Amino acid sequence: MRRFSRIKSSEIGHTPGDLHGVEKNGESEIELIRYNSDNYIRKKIKIISEEFLHDKNYVSWINITGIRDVEVIKKVGKLLDLHPLTLEDITNTRQRPKKEEFENYLITIIDILSYNGDYIQSEQVSLILTENVVITFQEAEGDDFDPIRRRIEEGKGQIRKRGSDYLLYSLLDAVVDNYFKILEKTEEQLEEIDRNVVSEKAGPETLELIQSLKQEIIFLRKNIWPLNSVFSSLYRIDFNLINKETDYYLRDVYDHVVQLMDEIEVIRDMLSSMLDVYLSNKSNKMNEVMKVLTIIATIFIPLTFIAGIYGMNFQYMPELDNQLAYPAVMIFMLIIAVLQLIYFRWKKWF
Amino acid sequence: MRRFSRIKSSEIGHTPGDLHGVEKNGESEIELIRYNSDNYIRKKIKIISEEFLHDKNYVSWINITGIRDVEVIKKVGKLLDLHPLTLEDITNTRQRPKKEEFENYLITIIDILSYNGDYIQSEQVSLILTENVVITFQEAEGDDFDPIRRRIEEGKGQIRKRGSDYLLYSLLDAVVDNYFKILEKTEEQLEEIDRNVVSEKAGPETLELIQSLKQEIIFLRKNIWPLNSVFSSLYRIDFNLINKETDYYLRDVYDHVVQLMDEIEVIRDMLSSMLDVYLSNKSNKMNEVMKVLTIIATIFIPLTFIAGIYGMNFQYMPELDNQLAYPAVMIFMLIIAVLQLIYFRWKKWF
Amino acid sequence: MRRFSRIKSSEIGHTPGDLHGVEKNGESEIELIRYNSDNYIRKKIKIISEEFLHDKNYVSWINITGIRDVEVIKKVGKLLDLHPLTLEDITNTRQRPKKEEFENYLITIIDILSYNGDYIQSEQVSLILTENVVITFQEAEGDDFDPIRRRIEEGKGQIRKRGSDYLLYSLLDAVVDNYFKILEKTEEQLEEIDRNVVSEKAGPETLELIQSLKQEIIFLRKNIWPLNSVFSSLYRIDFNLINKETDYYLRDVYDHVVQLMDEIEVIRDMLSSMLDVYLSNKSNKMNEVMKVLTIIATIFIPLTFIAGIYGMNFQYMPELDNQLAYPAVMIFMLIIAVLQLIYFRWKKWF
Amino acid sequence: MRRFSRIKSSEIGHTPGDLHGVEKNGESEIELIRYNSDNYIRKKIKIISEEFLHDKNYVSWINITGIRDVEVIKKVGKLLDLHPLTLEDITNTRQRPKKEEFENYLITIIDILSYNGDYIQSEQVSLILTENVVITFQEAEGDDFDPIRRRIEEGKGQIRKRGSDYLLYSLLDAVVDNYFKILEKTEEQLEEIDRNVVSEKAGPETLELIQSLKQEIIFLRKNIWPLNSVFSSLYRIDFNLINKETDYYLRDVYDHVVQLMDEIEVIRDMLSSMLDVYLSNKSNKMNEVMKVLTIIATIFIPLTFIAGIYGMNFQYMPELDNQLAYPAVMIFMLIIAVLQLIYFRWKKWF
Amino acid sequence: MRRFSRIKSSEIGHTPGDLHGVEKNGESEIELIRYNSDNYIRKKIKIISEEFLHDKNYVSWINITGIRDVEVIKKVGKLLDLHPLTLEDITNTRQRPKKEEFENYLITIIDILSYNGDYIQSEQVSLILTENVVITFQEAEGDDFDPIRRRIEEGKGQIRKRGSDYLLYSLLDAVVDNYFKILEKTEEQLEEIDRNVVSEKAGPETLELIQSLKQEIIFLRKNIWPLNSVFSSLYRIDFNLINKETDYYLRDVYDHVVQLMDEIEVIRDMLSSMLDVYLSNKSNKMNEVMKVLTIIATIFIPLTFIAGIYGMNFQYMPELDNQLAYPAVMIFMLIIAVLQLIYFRWKKWF
Repeated sequence: MRRFSRIKSSEIGHTPGDLHGVEKNGESEIELIRYNSDNYIRKKIKIISEEFLHDKNYVSWINITGIRDVEVIKKVGKLLDLHPLTLEDITNTRQRPKKEEFENYLITIIDILSYNGDYIQSEQVSLILTENVVITFQEAEGDDFDPIRRRIEEGKGQIRKRGSDYLLYSLLDAVVDNYFKILEKTEEQLEEIDRNVVSEKAGPETLELIQSLKQEIIFLRKNIWPLNSVFSSLYRIDFNLINKETDYYLRDVYDHVVQLMDEIEVIRDMLSSMLDVYLSNKSNKMNEVMKVLTIIATIFIPLTFIAGIYGMNFQYMPELDNQLAYPAVMIFMLIIAVLQLIYFRWKKWF
Repeated sequence: MRRFSRIKSSEIGHTPGDLHGVEKNGESEIELIRYNSDNYIRKKIKIISEEFLHDKNYVSWINITGIRDVEVIKKVGKLLDLHPLTLEDITNTRQRPKKEEFENYLITIIDILSYNGDYIQSEQVSLILTENVVITFQEAEGDDFDPIRRRIEEGKGQIRKRGSDYLLYSLLDAVVDNYFKILEKTEEQLEEIDRNVVSEKAGPETLELIQSLKQEIIFLRKNIWPLNSVFSSLYRIDFNLINKETDYYLRDVYDHVVQLMDEIEVIRDMLSSMLDVYLSNKSNKMNEVMKVLTIIATIFIPLTFIAGIYGMNFQYMPELDNQLAYPAVMIFMLIIAVLQLIYFRWKKWF
Repeated sequence: MRRFSRIKSSEIGHTPGDLHGVEKNGESEIELIRYNSDNYIRKKIKIISEEFLHDKNYVSWINITGIRDVEVIKKVGKLLDLHPLTLEDITNTRQRPKKEEFENYLITIIDILSYNGDYIQSEQVSLILTENVVITFQEAEGDDFDPIRRRIEEGKGQIRKRGSDYLLYSLLDAVVDNYFKILEKTEEQLEEIDRNVVSEKAGPETLELIQSLKQEIIFLRKNIWPLNSVFSSLYRIDFNLINKETDYYLRDVYDHVVQLMDEIEVIRDMLSSMLDVYLSNKSNKMNEVMKVLTIIATIFIPLTFIAGIYGMNFQYMPELDNQLAYPAVMIFMLIIAVLQLIYFRWKKWF
Repeated sequence: MRRFSRIKSSEIGHTPGDLHGVEKNGESEIELIRYNSDNYIRKKIKIISEEFLHDKNYVSWINITGIRDVEVIKKVGKLLDLHPLTLEDITNTRQRPKKEEFENYLITIIDILSYNGDYIQSEQVSLILTENVVITFQEAEGDDFDPIRRRIEEGKGQIRKRGSDYLLYSLLDAVVDNYFKILEKTEEQLEEIDRNVVSEKAGPETLELIQSLKQEIIFLRKNIWPLNSVFSSLYRIDFNLINKETDYYLRDVYDHVVQLMDEIEVIRDMLSSMLDVYLSNKSNKMNEVMKVLTIIATIFIPLTFIAGIYGMNFQYMPELDNQLAYPAVMIFMLIIAVLQLIYFRWKKWF
Repeated sequence: MRRFSRIKSSEIGHTPGDLHGVEKNGESEIELIRYNSDNYIRKKIKIISEEFLHDKNYVSWINITGIRDVEVIKKVGKLLDLHPLTLEDITNTRQRPKKEEFENYLITIIDILSYNGDYIQSEQVSLILTENVVITFQEAEGDDFDPIRRRIEEGKGQIRKRGSDYLLYSLLDAVVDNYFKILEKTEEQLEEIDRNVVSEKAGPETLELIQSLKQEIIFLRKNIWPLNSVFSSLYRIDFNLINKETDYYLRDVYDHVVQLMDEIEVIRDMLSSMLDVYLSNKSNKMNEVMKVLTIIATIFIPLTFIAGIYGMNFQYMPELDNQLAYPAVMIFMLIIAVLQLIYFRWKKWF
């Protein structure tokens, strides 16, 4: 009952194309991985030298962590001839996932989601693809790309044999695969609700869990729906930076995105169906309680009235003196009670 | 209240194009059916020999049961020159139904649904069409394709006279026809609910049945909606593997898929309408119960108060000594009760 | 609360293209109407002779009633060179409305709806258009086409001067016009609900009527929505069997179909709005009942308590001996009751 | 709670293209307005003479009131060479708004809405545009076109300088502008509801007003939505009867239609939000009432029980003889009541 | 619970193309800003002279505040050769946001939203782009464009180096950025609701806040949705007034609009989810209250009845004389109470 993204006003109303990192002197780390089918280099660097950006013998992956270091980002922008809006998009962390083609490069912005204890955290990553370089900008260091690093290092799969477009695919695929892990957790919680919702244990905390899952799903939808248009156009574009062969792979990621959206819709439907079950269960229980009150009250109210009559202090109440009156009244009361019970039973009230 | 598909984390985050069967050494069975209008061969084989893959005099149907035997699948991949992603799709059993064209083959992935006692089970089947071969990969042995086998054996219909594309159509048609059987069961349950929902018998178990049908329909929708895009593109594609004449047949299957989607939407609408009926019936009944309480309580509470007054022990209550007081009070009470009854009747409360 | 179409399993899983009429030896009747602007022939025939199928001087309308007589249908298929799937579509009575073009003919399948006492009945009719012949296949004899027969006989309107495509249009128009009659009945019931729903008379049977209309509308939607795609493509197709002039008429039918869909959506909206009215009326009434209980109980419960106090048998209750105590208590009670009434009035509870 | 359009069965099932006015001998009035930038003639005529239909020096506007006079309409049809379906559309007053192009003319059918006391009335108007003539067919005399008449007479604006297409635009614009007046009334009622819905005064009549506005909006939607397709295609068509310059004006009307649809959707949303407010207000009030009952009953029921105990007539009840018993019991009762009040307060029940 | 736009009837039904400002003699202020990379002039002017409209060395921004001064607007119209409909659109302040291209200029109409104390105010601004001039028409003086003025004055960013199309972009970007500020306020309120809705404090004022936010969102949607079509077409148009380079910037604004729509949908979903939480919380609380009544009433009603029995004044009630009767009855009552408590506990009623 607590997670939704706030737009920070510090990021509104700035000069377009201006870099407006909140802390302009934040520090960043640059990691360089260069490889071809034979060689592999991985090192931390301070400055990106122009030479290996144009060395076509290698695929270079430059991962920049910390997007607050405006100087570095400006330098990268100059080196790669990036559009001012691109630089702005990279540093503005409340971006909607998107994909934009420029003449000499392609930028993809996507959110990495992760479970941070109880709630889902989102971190923006920007990926720039040029002819033989992929540059990734991350807000903070994460481990989502570690499997890719390992795969490059070990030369497993096709990654070492292919170009920068395949590297871009691998990174995007890693991010999207990660979404499935998030959904898996959501579905575990859904199963837990499903087990509890009809049982005696279902209480306000079940309702709270349903509502909090609902908000989680709203949050996930917001992050995953834009991916549809990102990927649906990605694999179809006639863009010389992306190989026809890599297209098959991007289409595969797109299929995964569509599957994610399907799963989210299914979870939404399930949640609203579970809310219905919970609410009608609650109301069923309440009705049961009310019925008991009704039956007991309806039986005893007339009887108490009769007792009240013979408790009156009138001088002349002939019945009072009759020796059989007391048992007769008691039997009369019993008959009334039994008749009522029969009536209620006949009406199927209990 | 129990069925939804979980994404298995064991299938996430692997190297793309890698075969990641959960039990890599699972065993598979290969059945080969070869036929033309004159001849028919059916046998279990161990190895798929390249020769009959290219023998254009026969149509070959290779049915591989058990997709965990990675070695076999790799061999098939090599023999038919399948894309790594295709192999991955075949073994990844949580695939969304899809259709993909490659240069030399067409792959269709679809779910076979079956009622396993109480709930619907889904099994993935992948169908690969090449020039004169159809290869089907099934998770487990099923009997959905038996009518096709019989039809080939007996030479009934056109199947023996036509090519591998007609075989593909026949198999897909069998799967889609099977969905109607599932829907038929669902509609039987719907009719049962329909009979019960207004009757006295409608209790929590009716609600549970409605909710469980709702989840079933959510599950069916998830499996059947993707078929729309699979089949709508299938019969329109300009693909040399599929004969123009077979197009008519595929269009027919597509019509069936559209009809399935129609039926599902109708069932959804019916279910939500029945839930409305159930809930307002419940609440009607509860209201009836409450009204009885109200009427009885409202009649007797004032009477009991009057009895209470004459039960007070004040020394000086002149009425108590009057001989007519007792019958007078009794008559007064009766009048009050009757007036109330008239009022309630006039208000149409009962 | 009872009408929805069941898929018959006897019609699932058959050999595609095979004729699987439930009673293969059912009997059919064939009626032939031949006309041009000068002549008119109408007779029952046993066998369709090839000669008048190709006689371009006449327009021939062959109406076949009873689609279970497989032999006749097979013969027609052979005579007109129909596709096996077409024959299957004609005999499979659970077809979705559709339109399909073949090289030499056009088939339109549509449902004739009629009120059978209380509920809507649907009967499938298939219309095949060739150059100068229209063949109609009906499940059972109906009177929907009688106005057309009369119009041909009397030579009213343009029908005798025009070709088979105009005849096809006239028949389709008659079917669609008939839908308006069904909707008219539905709207009459809607008006009846509208009159009752706010009145005192609105009871469970009003709810039942709303729900049953809802199901009727679900049923109608299912039958009418597919017509949209049937007719929207029908008048636009570049099909040499249909005259450009007839296009205007088909566009007119299409407009009627769109209007039907509009009306259905309006009725749906009205129904759900009426359900809202009904439910809040019910709950309003219940609240009124509860309020009376509350007010009476809340007034008398404290008074009864006071009476109870002075009914206690304590030896030393000084008030009891005071001569003014009884009237004083009575006045005190009256004051309490009046104060409560004033409070409730001030709170606008009654 | 009363307005929706009934389809009249008298208008169903007729011969297509036949004129089926309900009262064929109804009378019609014909008004002729002819103008160019210099001259202006306005007169009632009996017969439309062919000569001024083709006199290109003037723009002629022929307004025919009363569409039941079949003879006149047939004559007009002959004079202008109208399609039989066009004549049918003009006389069939339950037409959906539409626009149809023929070779020599363009017909637009649209509804004029007006508030007739309490409810919205709809009247159909058909507008036919030929090269230099606009013919309008109205069901009954209305004043919607009066401003246009005045503008022509006074030569205000551009109307006298332009052709018949601009006249058509002016008439359509007048009709659409009129819709805004209807919506304005609806919004006034909406504001009234908005003022009442949270106040004490909100009663069943507020609910009724909400529901009746809802039905009004359903009715308006049904009439205005088809205009979208009418106007969206109108300004884009490559139709020699409509000047490129007039296109700008028609686009402006289209913008108004889109704005109308926006407003209607907003009102729909507002209404359903107000219904929510009303219902939760009602239920809040009811809850308040119930709480008072609960609190009073819960306090006095135990006290009455205690009083009942000491009202029992047992011979041996030692407390009864104790002189302090009466005040002690009274204090005990007080303590119980106070404790309950504290508990309820702590629970925030009041 | 109070804001929605009323259509003013004073603006309906006028002569098309006529300027119908409510107060035709309202006064307007004209501010002129002219700049190129070297020079910058800003001054208030009385008359727009034709000369600088065609001086291609400068970009001119003419900001006209107060659109009621019909004379000024007419003069501008003449000077720039604006279409009559454009002039009408500028002065009609209830325009839907839109964009229209004419041969020699482009007009964009958009709403500036601002928080005026408690509710959102909307002010219409029209922007006309010609070759080297941007003219903005504002209803009242606002400060939304101040940052742009400053940026031009200080020569920050690219604005001084680029043409009038970039100026148009900057102004539109400022307006759209401002929407984010509005949404930010809305989200702050949403967070406040989120904090309160489950707590004890949630009362009718929480409900009112939810409903008022809902109406705010309806209002925002109405203003922001049309922007989608405005901007989606703006950056794609093949319009010689807009530079290809500026297209990138307009695409960026479009992305922001899409993000705005996403945020609005998320807030809508959150609000309806919070309403659900609020309502089920309320009903939970009510149920708790009712349960206490039920339990206390159900326990004491039978006990009071027993006490009533022994309060009867029959002559012959043998129990009354038994010395143990009183304690026995008391113990009997206790047992009944305890049994009931155990039963309720077992039923998990408390």
